[in-house]
Amino acid sequence: MVELAREALHVSVTDPVAASMNFLNEVAGRFPDAISLAAGRPSDEFYAVEDVERYLAAYVAHLRGQGLAEMRVRQALLQYGRTNGQIGGMIARMLETDEDIRVPDDAVMVTSGCQEAMIIALRGLCAGPADVVLAAEPCYVGLTGAARVLGVPVIPVPETGQGLRPETVAQAARTARAAGRRPRALYVVSNFANPSGVSLSEDVRRGLIEVAADEDLLILEDDPYGLFGLDDRPRPALKALDTDQRVIYLGSFAKSVFPGARVGFLVADQVVVGTDAQRSLLADELSTVKSMITVNTAPIAQAVIGGVLVSCGFSLRAANREKTAFYRRNLHALMAALERHCGGQEISWNSPSGGFFAVLHVPVRADEKLLERSARDYGVLWTPMSFFYLDGGGRQSIRLSCSSLRPGQIDEGVRRLSALIADVRP
Amino acid sequence: MVELAREALHVSVTDPVAASMNFLNEVAGRFPDAISLAAGRPSDEFYAVEDVERYLAAYVAHLRGQGLAEMRVRQALLQYGRTNGQIGGMIARMLETDEDIRVPDDAVMVTSGCQEAMIIALRGLCAGPADVVLAAEPCYVGLTGAARVLGVPVIPVPETGQGLRPETVAQAARTARAAGRRPRALYVVSNFANPSGVSLSEDVRRGLIEVAADEDLLILEDDPYGLFGLDDRPRPALKALDTDQRVIYLGSFAKSVFPGARVGFLVADQVVVGTDAQRSLLADELSTVKSMITVNTAPIAQAVIGGVLVSCGFSLRAANREKTAFYRRNLHALMAALERHCGGQEISWNSPSGGFFAVLHVPVRADEKLLERSARDYGVLWTPMSFFYLDGGGRQSIRLSCSSLRPGQIDEGVRRLSALIADVRP
Repeated sequence: MVELAREALHVSVTDPVAASMNFLNEVAGRFPDAISLAAGRPSDEFYAVEDVERYLAAYVAHLRGQGLAEMRVRQALLQYGRTNGQIGGMIARMLETDEDIRVPDDAVMVTSGCQEAMIIALRGLCAGPADVVLAAEPCYVGLTGAARVLGVPVIPVPETGQGLRPETVAQAARTARAAGRRPRALYVVSNFANPSGVSLSEDVRRGLIEVAADEDLLILEDDPYGLFGLDDRPRPALKALDTDQRVIYLGSFAKSVFPGARVGFLVADQVVVGTDAQRSLLADELSTVKSMITVNTAPIAQAVIGGVLVSCGFSLRAANREKTAFYRRNLHALMAALERHCGGQEISWNSPSGGFFAVLHVPVRADEKLLERSARDYGVLWTPMSFFYLDGGGRQSIRLSCSSLRPGQIDEGVRRLSALIADVRP
Repeated sequence: MVELAREALHVSVTDPVAASMNFLNEVAGRFPDAISLAAGRPSDEFYAVEDVERYLAAYVAHLRGQGLAEMRVRQALLQYGRTNGQIGGMIARMLETDEDIRVPDDAVMVTSGCQEAMIIALRGLCAGPADVVLAAEPCYVGLTGAARVLGVPVIPVPETGQGLRPETVAQAARTARAAGRRPRALYVVSNFANPSGVSLSEDVRRGLIEVAADEDLLILEDDPYGLFGLDDRPRPALKALDTDQRVIYLGSFAKSVFPGARVGFLVADQVVVGTDAQRSLLADELSTVKSMITVNTAPIAQAVIGGVLVSCGFSLRAANREKTAFYRRNLHALMAALERHCGGQEISWNSPSGGFFAVLHVPVRADEKLLERSARDYGVLWTPMSFFYLDGGGRQSIRLSCSSLRPGQIDEGVRRLSALIADVRP
């Protein structure tokens, strides 16, 4: 019988971040009654099973309304279809309505979730062994995971409480270049980042675009949480400020609609010039990579999201008002619970202006051992921030998520966590 | 404004095979009235748009029938769910019913189409720069494409009219090893391969499994066309003969159901042993890679396929009788048309025992130039076999596909092709 040595498998299989996430899931599985301040998934209270059917029908009605022959409608749902997908035009319209981002329909590639958008963008841009990507640290594990699969090195750029500083990015790019590397892109979450909760000021956004031009970088802007600010103040996407096509925008419908469709997208309106002087859009060039990873995004899933977009008049911002109110209430509840239970304990935390996450700094080492004890003896789960650092860091910090709980559970979870820390602090 | 140099992008963007396929699509687009003996997509006549809804409902009814609470049903469709998917058990049952393949449910990973199964298997197995994959040549472009994205070298093993010869595989593995490479796996299509139409005899199947054991290879068995034999003779999957867990089975629902769900799977029941002596299934280990590529396969798409499996009593073989008859009729029509129009012209062809494809050998160079002329002046499209060779080969051969035409079109297409060849032959 074949036995494979685990260490002979690729490094992405044995990735330490993946091992950490597995550990977290395993602990969550062993203590199913623990309150989870770890799970960052969106609430699933806003949709019913029947909505899937309804959105599918809305999409089909839309196609028929456009005069598509029945055979074409059937093919749109059941055949392979175009590599870059069929709802790119709808997504472009949504981006214009909600984000003031104006791009040609062909600049949009529909992907099998935002994760695939990340791996496609990284693969297309990072061509040789010298090519690297810069990323704000602490960093979303999806980006580091995609880079690991491809063997693309990630250079962390430390984030401050106000997000990345443009000059730190420039410095990191120059240092990398001096070491013989070619920095190709900078990954950044513009609003209420996972894990830090931090958002970029408008000055920083503009500064990052300038630095990208100076250092010849592209920016991979990821914005899954942008709809869920605590207030209605506009927060311009980097892509909306991008007059020079420096930004590749990575999109997700997992939070603004639901994760079960696994539909995301990327916007790449950069011009690519071949040696034959032929010009094309980067999104078109990247379609080759997409075809080698998943061929195309499930047309049935695209149809469901297309149905959502048609039904909401292409404004997910408008369609998400109720959900936005829900997440606002939860984040307020988290902040109130922290005030109530964690004041005066050498514990501090940040105050994100929206989103699903906040970070707690504690006077103890917040590692897997403490997490297990927390789950077993205190009935509360959370995520060690160290999971989001490449070379150490975040050892006394905790990511708290409030996206899939109710206010009472958030309060009780924070109370339990505070009791844990009071008991173990030196 | 940013202009990116095409040659600074990754080699998978500028892949020559992709360029060839683009050329083919572009020609097809310019001559939409040409009969396409090039398109290998399944016929879309067997399903209607309304079936999607019906299968979704069947899956939901199945979950409810199993006593799942309404909240869990909603989460099954709308939330992220398990990385390796939720219909693995159903697929295992289908494999036992249709293919006599017996594997634990946990050995099945549901993927975003078979393409993702290929890239995940290659990524997991090929860990270092010395690792290579062997592949029967002519080779399906999906496999070479996935390898290109990852930078994994593919070593071609020439196929004969009877498929791969086990001794040729052994020889190729030894030559690679002598050159300092580590052959990790052999990719092979067991039935009616794309592009060659060739199937493996049972002796060859057993021989390949023996060679895999001798040379310490795994076999990546791809079988998208197995249901579509010209007769009902059983053709045991390598995986069904595999008592030693040498075979990773790659599955697709694109032909047996429809492509629009983009659901495929891989079966990896190999035992993986860590340095800590901990044992797990390869499918579980590979879930880390899957999570970094697409997180999980669209639950809505899985639900549609799950509904199909529930509705057909887990036998796609039984559910595909009508479709099988359709493809048999078409392949017979192709063979009859070749006899009728191409006899006595120094043209020869193979006679596949099933599937979508046959290969024609012609006394002229069957290149892109001839293809364009064929489309423009003769109204018929086909695929140069050279697209499926890594280092030259197939220059006077043509892949003919008969999967999405009607018999009358097949006859007329072959007649036109024969006229082209008669006109250009030396």
